[in-house]
Amino acid sequence: MSNPVEEFNAYRAKMNDKMMADNNKIVKRIFNLDTNAFAEGALSKQTKEVLGLGNSLVLRCDDCVKYHLEECYKLGMNKAEVVEAMSVSLLIGGTIVIPHLRRAYEYWEALEQNKS
Amino acid sequence: MSNPVEEFNAYRAKMNDKMMADNNKIVKRIFNLDTNAFAEGALSKQTKEVLGLGNSLVLRCDDCVKYHLEECYKLGMNKAEVVEAMSVSLLIGGTIVIPHLRRAYEYWEALEQNKS
Amino acid sequence: MSNPVEEFNAYRAKMNDKMMADNNKIVKRIFNLDTNAFAEGALSKQTKEVLGLGNSLVLRCDDCVKYHLEECYKLGMNKAEVVEAMSVSLLIGGTIVIPHLRRAYEYWEALEQNKS
Amino acid sequence: MSNPVEEFNAYRAKMNDKMMADNNKIVKRIFNLDTNAFAEGALSKQTKEVLGLGNSLVLRCDDCVKYHLEECYKLGMNKAEVVEAMSVSLLIGGTIVIPHLRRAYEYWEALEQNKS
Amino acid sequence: MSNPVEEFNAYRAKMNDKMMADNNKIVKRIFNLDTNAFAEGALSKQTKEVLGLGNSLVLRCDDCVKYHLEECYKLGMNKAEVVEAMSVSLLIGGTIVIPHLRRAYEYWEALEQNKS
Amino acid sequence: MSNPVEEFNAYRAKMNDKMMADNNKIVKRIFNLDTNAFAEGALSKQTKEVLGLGNSLVLRCDDCVKYHLEECYKLGMNKAEVVEAMSVSLLIGGTIVIPHLRRAYEYWEALEQNKS
Repeated sequence: MSNPVEEFNAYRAKMNDKMMADNNKIVKRIFNLDTNAFAEGALSKQTKEVLGLGNSLVLRCDDCVKYHLEECYKLGMNKAEVVEAMSVSLLIGGTIVIPHLRRAYEYWEALEQNKS
Repeated sequence: MSNPVEEFNAYRAKMNDKMMADNNKIVKRIFNLDTNAFAEGALSKQTKEVLGLGNSLVLRCDDCVKYHLEECYKLGMNKAEVVEAMSVSLLIGGTIVIPHLRRAYEYWEALEQNKS
Repeated sequence: MSNPVEEFNAYRAKMNDKMMADNNKIVKRIFNLDTNAFAEGALSKQTKEVLGLGNSLVLRCDDCVKYHLEECYKLGMNKAEVVEAMSVSLLIGGTIVIPHLRRAYEYWEALEQNKS
Repeated sequence: MSNPVEEFNAYRAKMNDKMMADNNKIVKRIFNLDTNAFAEGALSKQTKEVLGLGNSLVLRCDDCVKYHLEECYKLGMNKAEVVEAMSVSLLIGGTIVIPHLRRAYEYWEALEQNKS
Repeated sequence: MSNPVEEFNAYRAKMNDKMMADNNKIVKRIFNLDTNAFAEGALSKQTKEVLGLGNSLVLRCDDCVKYHLEECYKLGMNKAEVVEAMSVSLLIGGTIVIPHLRRAYEYWEALEQNKS
Repeated sequence: MSNPVEEFNAYRAKMNDKMMADNNKIVKRIFNLDTNAFAEGALSKQTKEVLGLGNSLVLRCDDCVKYHLEECYKLGMNKAEVVEAMSVSLLIGGTIVIPHLRRAYEYWEALEQNKS
């Protein structure tokens, strides 16, 4: 039986490995920066993940939304917090964001079911 | 002598008044939602303003960036916090964001000078 | 046998219900505004649906395009009218719109086959 | 005294002439298509201009918005119609569109003052 | 067994035929320009395909990326060249481009396997 | 008398200095990567600058377009080459790119006049 969370992460990991194996300096450094950028700093890790989620939502990138939803979930954020953040991004990004919000809700549900 | 903060706010207020005077229901409700969306809720007002700033930066809207920078400033955020948030958005949004980051730095400076 | 029109609408309705059940004020009001925005007003409902279709196409949102195509279809617009509107948006939005235009054509065909 | 409508059109005309003088085939044909695309066809010229205005607004191009506002104005559309179209695009495009809406209001006012 | 390259091209060809059959003048001319734009000229065909690939990547259009990857592949470009071009676009477009880069790597692999 | 090329570069240099002085790690590394990305590699520096120009044009960033136009100019590219590259990006990015193309033409002219 398919598990959307596992599927997403497996594909992501497999392709990231291939990209890293390639040794292109720019690609590797961007990936490295990506890890650094979301570490605790002047702002909390949670604030940064909310920011990453919101930025991904207004830029309408489903995979990026999934990734940050999962990080928010792992940090213990509850659904009300995540939905509130996404509602701000819906307002800023407009109704064009709605289809991505549907898929975000679906993935959040998958995260909750995956855990149980 | 021109003051960029006052100029920005004066133009914004003048045009917002004209839009509100127009009584278009959709426009008025969107403006009303805009106020609600950034109120304290499941997330703090500050987290939401950081989110608003980041969303505006990756969508590359200078006026929106200015508005949220000013809100962050009024909430007492320091430059390190604001720059860290913007650095995450620079990474997500790419180097295409750099010219907007320049103008954001310039406006933050104007906010600091305006106060003193 | 799968029916793309029914599938699209079933998923859309299911997820919209979940979002509405959530009682986030911003999300609910945006959905409510969405209904109001496309009602007959200073402009005809058809003009507004053409506008919704075009905006969705240049913003390259396949699900939004499908939704407005279906509304245009229900309002009795013919293919020549819909294609002409989409051709304007193709020109404004550029060839990057072409893959979305392919899927729009496919969905229009599904709408016509669904009816018969 | 500066006239924003005349200034905009003078710059636009001057630079378009330079681009046409350059004889790049793709550029010339795109410009030519641009004229054709907004001619009366299966849809009325007015519907197409509303579409052009809305597409320009959600893509957040101030100069394109100005151009289509002027075309709508010349076709005799009233402010209520134009504002209603823009309100739909504000909803679809989100609050990130607001600064562009401010400038659109300002230009519409300039169009009205230019005439009198 | 499914072949991603053949599937992509079959769908693309089928839908392009339907669009051409429709005789909308704007759509046909845009398609015609598309062919002309990538012909050898002041710049080499390869430079133009690299440009088409990069533009598609920062605009985040998977189908457009696939199309230009295939053209680059047919022109004999090697993986290092293609990856370097994509790394520049990743930097300009930001980490929001990463999911599209994953799918680009996957398609390049499919192109190599398809040949053998 | 104002010189658009000098003005642009002076502002750019001044603000870049302020950003670098700030010691945010992500910002500094992105700036550093930006320099690396356009160095000679598997692709020529010129091909990469054409790519940078095109990416900036379809993402509609005037300052980025100016920067890459100047780099192309310094590499000795002629106007026909630069215009051809921009015409491909106009086609991919659509007529929404036209106002940015006007400003690109204007800046190219300024580059030529600045030299003489």
